[in-house]
Amino acid sequence: MHGEIITIGNELVSGRTQDLNSWYAAGRLTASGLKVTRVTSVGDDEKRTGEALKRALNSSRFVIVTGGLGSTTDDMTCEIAANALDCPLCLDHQMLSKIEEYVRDRKIQMTESLKKMARMPKGARMINPKGATCGFSLVTEDVHFYFLPGVPDQTRYLIDTFVLPDILGRYETLPVMRQRIIKVYGLDEPRIAEIFNSIERRLEEVVLGFYPHFPENHITISLRGRDEPSVSSILDRAERIISEMVGPYAFTHDSREMEEVVGHILQKNEKTLSVAESCTGGLIGTRLTDVAGSSRYFQGGVVSYSNQAKIDFLRVSRKTIESYGAVSAETAREMAMGVRSAMHTDIGLAVTGIAGPDGGSRDKPVGTVHIALSSEKKIFTEKYRFWGKRKQVKLNSAMMALDWVRRYLNGDPFISGI
Amino acid sequence: MHGEIITIGNELVSGRTQDLNSWYAAGRLTASGLKVTRVTSVGDDEKRTGEALKRALNSSRFVIVTGGLGSTTDDMTCEIAANALDCPLCLDHQMLSKIEEYVRDRKIQMTESLKKMARMPKGARMINPKGATCGFSLVTEDVHFYFLPGVPDQTRYLIDTFVLPDILGRYETLPVMRQRIIKVYGLDEPRIAEIFNSIERRLEEVVLGFYPHFPENHITISLRGRDEPSVSSILDRAERIISEMVGPYAFTHDSREMEEVVGHILQKNEKTLSVAESCTGGLIGTRLTDVAGSSRYFQGGVVSYSNQAKIDFLRVSRKTIESYGAVSAETAREMAMGVRSAMHTDIGLAVTGIAGPDGGSRDKPVGTVHIALSSEKKIFTEKYRFWGKRKQVKLNSAMMALDWVRRYLNGDPFISGI
Repeated sequence: MHGEIITIGNELVSGRTQDLNSWYAAGRLTASGLKVTRVTSVGDDEKRTGEALKRALNSSRFVIVTGGLGSTTDDMTCEIAANALDCPLCLDHQMLSKIEEYVRDRKIQMTESLKKMARMPKGARMINPKGATCGFSLVTEDVHFYFLPGVPDQTRYLIDTFVLPDILGRYETLPVMRQRIIKVYGLDEPRIAEIFNSIERRLEEVVLGFYPHFPENHITISLRGRDEPSVSSILDRAERIISEMVGPYAFTHDSREMEEVVGHILQKNEKTLSVAESCTGGLIGTRLTDVAGSSRYFQGGVVSYSNQAKIDFLRVSRKTIESYGAVSAETAREMAMGVRSAMHTDIGLAVTGIAGPDGGSRDKPVGTVHIALSSEKKIFTEKYRFWGKRKQVKLNSAMMALDWVRRYLNGDPFISGI
Repeated sequence: MHGEIITIGNELVSGRTQDLNSWYAAGRLTASGLKVTRVTSVGDDEKRTGEALKRALNSSRFVIVTGGLGSTTDDMTCEIAANALDCPLCLDHQMLSKIEEYVRDRKIQMTESLKKMARMPKGARMINPKGATCGFSLVTEDVHFYFLPGVPDQTRYLIDTFVLPDILGRYETLPVMRQRIIKVYGLDEPRIAEIFNSIERRLEEVVLGFYPHFPENHITISLRGRDEPSVSSILDRAERIISEMVGPYAFTHDSREMEEVVGHILQKNEKTLSVAESCTGGLIGTRLTDVAGSSRYFQGGVVSYSNQAKIDFLRVSRKTIESYGAVSAETAREMAMGVRSAMHTDIGLAVTGIAGPDGGSRDKPVGTVHIALSSEKKIFTEKYRFWGKRKQVKLNSAMMALDWVRRYLNGDPFISGI
């Protein structure tokens, strides 16, 4: 069952923005057993977009189109689709009342450009009409078109939640398609490739996928088959084999983020957490609080960017900083103890390091990071060297620190440092 | 002068690999004043590739094609091009002797599949015949095709060194292309659309673009022309007109992030900053510290997620929290004063709110956020209502708080709340 993807936007054909939408859509469609035969990107350009839509009508069974659905004058996808697919524009009452609701809620003025968004090709059906993010589908000559906004987060959400199930439900392929995901942290691509090579022969028709999401890596295990029990039992076995090989590097077997996994384990163990952040500057705190309900286990933290803040808020001794430096195991240790005691939590977590690009030295090059964890029983510290730019060093530092909480509560060893 | 890009490879249409070649080529061509009208990716598929080449022949002046030039059986670009562009395959002696040299140097056996690589469409001219990395060009019906390997490093090298100079030497384009960017915060898409509508007639050939980057919006102003001074003076005028309409909603006229702009203004004014974060959980701190050198003005902060942390670290009075609640102007005010005094900074910034999805009430619905700024002279507070999911509420809260520092130091009024 084959289809194609059309992405619209001047930013794509001018090279200003990478076309992540088509990449994501192609990956998801392929993993679901569908075939993508063509990806076309065009500018906000009536002629080229119209051509692309007509060509798709003549050669594909399903077509995903992204971009050009907003309210500015260069958002012309509805008009172009109406012309190219011969479905005149009509006022869509469902869409209009959605826009009116939006205008009412935000107490803004209704404008012509907003009203324009309610004019949709005849026969269009809204995708996710109750949600904040919508698109529409349109069936012409038995070809299913899915028109989605160009914002990557929104596109991904709509593809996964509505478009893919709709396409899969429509075609007689092997009816059951299941995918498992294993998210790993601390195992790099070459080591995962080795694991794949060593087991691929044992997994028969199972399809393995690898997706880097810095600093994580995601492994997918997919299979299409005739019925749920047989597909599931083959996938169970494949997942077990891979799990054994990756061990505690796997932090979750579902779509959760590390901070959700950590939050879950903290709650299960009835433990509370506080953090003392230097080089991460608040990144651990903001990730922990991205999870709804995190106030149940996360008490807060101190962003002790200056030495004085480390001394005032965390009771790090001035002497420790003077003797060993702010980036040292000793300072990290006192930060973790200090925040745990000041915030009255079970666990105190601390990170201090050099995110760069300046501030490195021969002894302590950019990317040197100390992590410490203080619990009721014991204090742990470890030194790491992370590579990459400032933001990447911060991301790895925060991820490693969160991973420490997970491994500590699971009784697994920490990833070793240097 | 317009052209297009065709990239070939199963790894592209299956989503396994991001198509960095077309992105790079599009960016380089656009920056050189050429226009890319379409990017097409197809699999290693004779039919689709042939169609794409024929279509390009009928609609473009130049075409860059990458992929499918190797020696494996799925590398069929030469054959497909020969058929589609009606240039029969011939043995190319220059290519053959290159392959023979390669075989001799490496002391490997000449194979049929290696020999196959010497069969090229009639009229093809090798690109970089003396180098290790080659491609070929082919002119049919006055359309210039450039066939390049799919390996990104090689493609980039050949584009920059041979293809781009060749195209530019061939066409009389308006040589100068310049683009300005204005990043705005707090002006939504409909209002920007209205501004565009009201000024587009006054801007003649200038091209305006609009790009949402939640929670910011970016406006681009582009122009192509004969020489730098005339292009610049028209763009100056357009930028001035738009600047007047957007006023202090524009936070930068370059690629900087809000936190870089804020950091710059803090340094210029020799002011230091500390933050007290409740619902943002550390997001303001991590954004400020994404900027290299931020330790010069950012002292740190307190993530006071629990009430106890607000009382212990920020000296918020228990009575204030009990009387007005943790999410209130009064608490925000004491947080800002508290963090400013505890961290010994010129400015103390505080955010407290309800990020959701739980915790809202009739009086204080999800998205209610109080911001406070305490300076040596005065304390400001304001109440906002942000929309969207938890992360979006956090993003808007952090952005608004950073915007306060910018506007405060610039002497501009804050964006009004509710």
